[in-house]
This record gives sequence, C-alpha cells and structure tokens, in this order.
Amino acid sequence: MGSTRVLGLGKAFHSHSSLCNGTRVFRRNPTVVLRAFASTLSPPSQAVVYEQHGPPDQVTRIIDLPPVELKEKDVCVKMRAAPINPSDINRIEGVYPVRPPVPAIGGYEGVGEIQAVGSAVKDFSLGDWVIPSPPSFGTWQTYIVKEESVWHKINKNVPMEYAATVTVNPLTALRMLEDFVQLNPGDAIVQNGATSIVGQCIIQLARIRGIHSINIIRDRVGSEEVKEKLKKLGADAVYTESQLEVKNVKGLLGDLPEPALGFNCVGGNPASFVLKFLRQGGTMVTYGGMAKKPVTVSTSSFIFKDLALRGFWLQKWMSSERARECRVMIDYLLGLVCDGKFKYELELVPFHDFSVALDKALGKLGSQPKQVLKF
Amino acid sequence: MGSTRVLGLGKAFHSHSSLCNGTRVFRRNPTVVLRAFASTLSPPSQAVVYEQHGPPDQVTRIIDLPPVELKEKDVCVKMRAAPINPSDINRIEGVYPVRPPVPAIGGYEGVGEIQAVGSAVKDFSLGDWVIPSPPSFGTWQTYIVKEESVWHKINKNVPMEYAATVTVNPLTALRMLEDFVQLNPGDAIVQNGATSIVGQCIIQLARIRGIHSINIIRDRVGSEEVKEKLKKLGADAVYTESQLEVKNVKGLLGDLPEPALGFNCVGGNPASFVLKFLRQGGTMVTYGGMAKKPVTVSTSSFIFKDLALRGFWLQKWMSSERARECRVMIDYLLGLVCDGKFKYELELVPFHDFSVALDKALGKLGSQPKQVLKF
Repeated sequence: MGSTRVLGLGKAFHSHSSLCNGTRVFRRNPTVVLRAFASTLSPPSQAVVYEQHGPPDQVTRIIDLPPVELKEKDVCVKMRAAPINPSDINRIEGVYPVRPPVPAIGGYEGVGEIQAVGSAVKDFSLGDWVIPSPPSFGTWQTYIVKEESVWHKINKNVPMEYAATVTVNPLTALRMLEDFVQLNPGDAIVQNGATSIVGQCIIQLARIRGIHSINIIRDRVGSEEVKEKLKKLGADAVYTESQLEVKNVKGLLGDLPEPALGFNCVGGNPASFVLKFLRQGGTMVTYGGMAKKPVTVSTSSFIFKDLALRGFWLQKWMSSERARECRVMIDYLLGLVCDGKFKYELELVPFHDFSVALDKALGKLGSQPKQVLKF
Repeated sequence: MGSTRVLGLGKAFHSHSSLCNGTRVFRRNPTVVLRAFASTLSPPSQAVVYEQHGPPDQVTRIIDLPPVELKEKDVCVKMRAAPINPSDINRIEGVYPVRPPVPAIGGYEGVGEIQAVGSAVKDFSLGDWVIPSPPSFGTWQTYIVKEESVWHKINKNVPMEYAATVTVNPLTALRMLEDFVQLNPGDAIVQNGATSIVGQCIIQLARIRGIHSINIIRDRVGSEEVKEKLKKLGADAVYTESQLEVKNVKGLLGDLPEPALGFNCVGGNPASFVLKFLRQGGTMVTYGGMAKKPVTVSTSSFIFKDLALRGFWLQKWMSSERARECRVMIDYLLGLVCDGKFKYELELVPFHDFSVALDKALGKLGSQPKQVLKF
C-alpha cells in the first residue's frame, strides 16, 4: 500500500518547526541534515498510538511524531476527520484477524486535504480532499504521508464527516445489497441492528432501489422515536425484538413480501428473527456480532426451508484488486449524500477530546452516535 | 405422477382370484361385473397403511387392498423390495413437510417387476425390473399400478436391495458432491454421520473422483472396527467425536488438504466439528439432523472464515423436472454397484416381518443396518 510513516516511538520528534507547505519552498529549517536529503518534509504529526494490544482506553495515547520525507510519488495529507469504528477497537484489542503490527497508529478510514506532494505527483493539487481507498491503517493522526496511489480525490462539497466514514459502513451496506441475492424493485430485505450506521444505510439504499426493508431493533426506552426515525429514512416496518416473540412472525408482514435477503449484525435471538422472516430459499448474511452470541439454526431451516447462511467482510472484499470499483462506489455514495438522499447519525469530536470519543465508542456512556474525530 | 391405486380401506377386497398375467388373457374370474369394464386388473395387494399420523409402530398395519383396473398406459408392478428410510418414518409421524394425505400407504422408493401392462404400453415387457423415478409415495405394498411414465427400467443383474435403495441415499450423496463446490482430484471433504448410508456413499463416490474424505463418527463400543470398515470403503481419515475435542482440529489433518466442503446430518457438536475442519471460504451442507440439535455457528466463522452454510433436500431437487437427470444418475450408481465399486450395509427382511423391521428402523433394537422389506 505504498510507503508509510515509520513509527519511531523512541525518537518522537517534538519540534513543529519543519512544516511542509503548498509551494514546496521551505521555511527556515534548523534540521539541515534532513533538508539536504529531502526536497519535501511532512510536518510533525500527532497520532493515537498503541504499543501493545489491550483495552483501548488503557493502551492508546496521543504522541508527537517527527516529520517524514516525501518521496517523489508521495503526498502529505493533513487529516480532517476519521471515525472510531468497532473494527478499530477490535484491532487495538488484538482480536481482529487483520491488524497492523504494534506499535501502531489507530484508525482505518478518514478524509484529509492535500498538504504537500512529491516531485513526481501529477494528479493532486494542494487543498484537494482525499480519502485512502482502499482504506489503510493509521488514520488517527494529523498528517499522513503515503504514496499517491493510496489516495482518492473526492468532491469538496461533501460534509467531512460523511467523507470520513463512507468507506467502511456505507460500502458494506451497498455490497451486501448487491452481492448475495438478485433483488428487484418490490422485493424485501430484513435486518437486525437496524439503528447501526450500516443498518441506516441499508434502509436508504434499499429504498432508492424500490426494495422494502423490515427492521428489527432492541427494546429500549424511546423505541417509538427510533422507529419513527428509521421510517423517515425509508424503513417500511420496524419491530422491537419483544414484538417478534409471536408464533407466526410472518403474520406481521401484512402486504410486504417475504424477504429474500436478511442481514445480521447481532447474533443470538435477533439473528433467529431474521431467519424466521426469510422466505423459502432466502439468504442471511452475517456482518457483525454485537450481542457476542453465535447464530443458531435448525436443521429444517437448511433442509426444508433451503436457507443459505453467508458472511461478509468488507476488508477481505476490498483486498482483492478492487480499488477502482471501490472508488466508483464511494463517488456514488457521496453523490447521494450531496443530493440529500443519504444520511446517518454521526458526532464530530475534536481530536484533543479523543479519550471522551473513545469512551463513547466503547459504550461507556450509553448509546451514542458514531464518533468522528475532527483534526 | 400418473394414476395410482385409490385407497378404499372400507372396501378392502380379500379375494385373490383375479390375478393379472402376462398374456392379458384372464383366468376364470367370478367377479363378472369388474371383468366387464376392465381389460386388465391388478392382483389384490397387501400394503402397510396408516389412517392417521402418529408413532409408526402404533398407526401402521398391513391390510389387503382390492384389485384395480389398469388403464391403457398403466403398468402393474409386483414389488420386490423397498426400504424403510428415516423420511418414511417422519412422513408417518406427520412431521415431514411433504407427505401424502392420510389414509396413506407407507414407503417412497423401491424396486419391482413388471406384472402386467395396459394396452398402450410399449416400452416395458413382463418381468422387467423397474423403480419409480422420481420416487413416489406408497412403495410398501405387494402390487402397484401406476402410469408407465413413473417407472424406470433397470438392469436386472443389480442386487434387488441396491435397486430398492438407490434413489434416496446414493442420489443425495452424488448430488451433494456435485452441486455446491467445484471439487478437483486431490481436494478433500469432511462429514459427520459417516456410518450412515449417505455417509458410506459419499466416501466411495469421493474416492472414485480422487477426493479425500475426513469422517466423523460417534464414540461407541467397537468404534475401531467401524473405522476399519469405513477405511476399507475408501475413507482417508476417521475420527470419533471425542478425538476432536482438541484445541487445533486441523492439526490432525497431516498431509490431507483442508476440506472445501462439509456434510452434516447430525447437528449440535458434530456439526461444529465439520465447521472447524473446513478451510477458509468452505461450505457446509446440512441434509439431516440425527441428534435433533440445531447448528450453532460463531459470528467470526461467517465474517472472517467466510463459511457458507446450505441445506440439501433431494425430494425438492427431484421435483423440478429432473426425471431424466435422475435416471441417468441411477443408472450410473447401479453400474458402480454391478462393478463392485459401490456398496453399503443393508438388511433384507421379509415383508411379513414388517413390524420387526420397523422396530429396528425406529432404533428400538440398537444400531442396525438399513431395513429393506422383501416382498
């Protein structure tokens, strides 16, 4: 994925004096030796790092990193925003199957602005907004230097919090709607965890395609308000789990068709509800396990109902030479955002409040919108 | 599925005087009224019937049925053999999703000999061996009258117990090896319930294709002998469930490749063992649930291991205009039997000992070979 900042924690460089800038003309720089070899240097950066795996609120800290040299095909990006996704937390915990070696900088997606470019870079101008696509590790830092091929230029009119979060959750929703079952307008899908960002995206992307969505949410205080919110996004039906404790779940469908495709990001009983709604020959795709409980399926669901159970992992999907395809999808999704057809709940938090954002992302402060660091 | 004997339990006809024969010339027949309308009549038949669903040993009985008239395209088949399959038991219990309305005659597959043919039947000769293909309800009777299209003529050199049982279990094994994952010589499959007939068929059909099989059996007295038996059929590896209670199941594979395809006919823990053996992106097909326990799957198996879980139901597969394809497969499988390349354990039991055979099939007498009624 091109060259990247090498973490030298022992040699952390605290001077902010050598900032790169748009004209590639350096200000007076006391680091003469460095300058002799480097036509362009990044500014020093601040980053959330962890030197070992463990509870994210214990093993992460913000440190200063020294400037790095831009090679001729590198660009230096001043990060604008980057979210705290559940997978980021799992990487820090050391429980995610693909993760950078420690010590590592946190984060996986985000958006930034071109701050400087190497001498051979032609396709980017200073001030361009870019996102790493496919995403790559280490977006929780103020400046990133990586090869130009890593970056995808986007429309600057997009709100930065959407640009920062478009790659992981919305792309997951889009691919899951496209890759498993051929859906036609008038068909239906069913999902649990419908209030998650992916869930909100599925509702809206389904609606744009004329596909009905049946949504399952947790029982909680204020569930009626949640139902109304999801219906405003385009949900056809929203049920709390307790509403589905009935003998014939399909009796609730009314005029809606039996769904051919279901999405599970919870596990346990809420996964069984998805299976119950599915039509003969339907498919359930698991992409998360928020309840930390397995999926349990009866023998007859497989044999007589002919259900298929699959999984989806965006990181694996993206790793297979699909860079161009990803970028087309990102442009499509950000276009929907600009047109006001695609939205979800986020909270922008200043980078220096990282520990508060992390606590919220860890669920320590109850149900919270996705936290997006603003640099 | 053509015309069929109509069950008139209230009018059971006990005379054996009007036997059809090969020359279509009738012996003296006292039933003058019947003879006036019927150019050919079947013999009266004896059949295992049930008038209501329930425990098979309580609701079934053998009764006499009156002769029926052969229409011009009908054939009368003197049944030779028919097995008691688990699905037959489930149909009698009323728990199988597709079953004949009661009162009904038991049985679903079998083999018989042409006893008489209707006036327009060209493709069968008296004495031909035939099996109903696709199979159809009501094979547990001594004479069956159905339209010629129902019957498939087979090689008379096949042992009758194989002809009687080829349609349900061996065809299931063959289709499951063909329909889910593209296997190449050198690949491997894994299965539980390996001592079942389907299990034995899978071992042999895999071996013929150069595919390795990893087999899981129950812990039981004599499991070493069972292992040897399965290895003689071609099994590459056989493990009892307790042998798989290890941290790294794949460490047992040795030189065998990780299997791409698994078969589950048990559920519960033995299904989890199949999942553990599967390679990244592998598929498990469920076709039975002998343990009456569901299949439990971790979230990470779906997301990170990319496992797919499917089901297979032969009866549904066959119902889709696949008569010709079925018959080609039956001929292939019976050819393997004749060549000595395909065998499995069966026990032939005289029809008049039906209640003993049923008790064995119900598991009342411990582990027993599949019971095949001999008429």
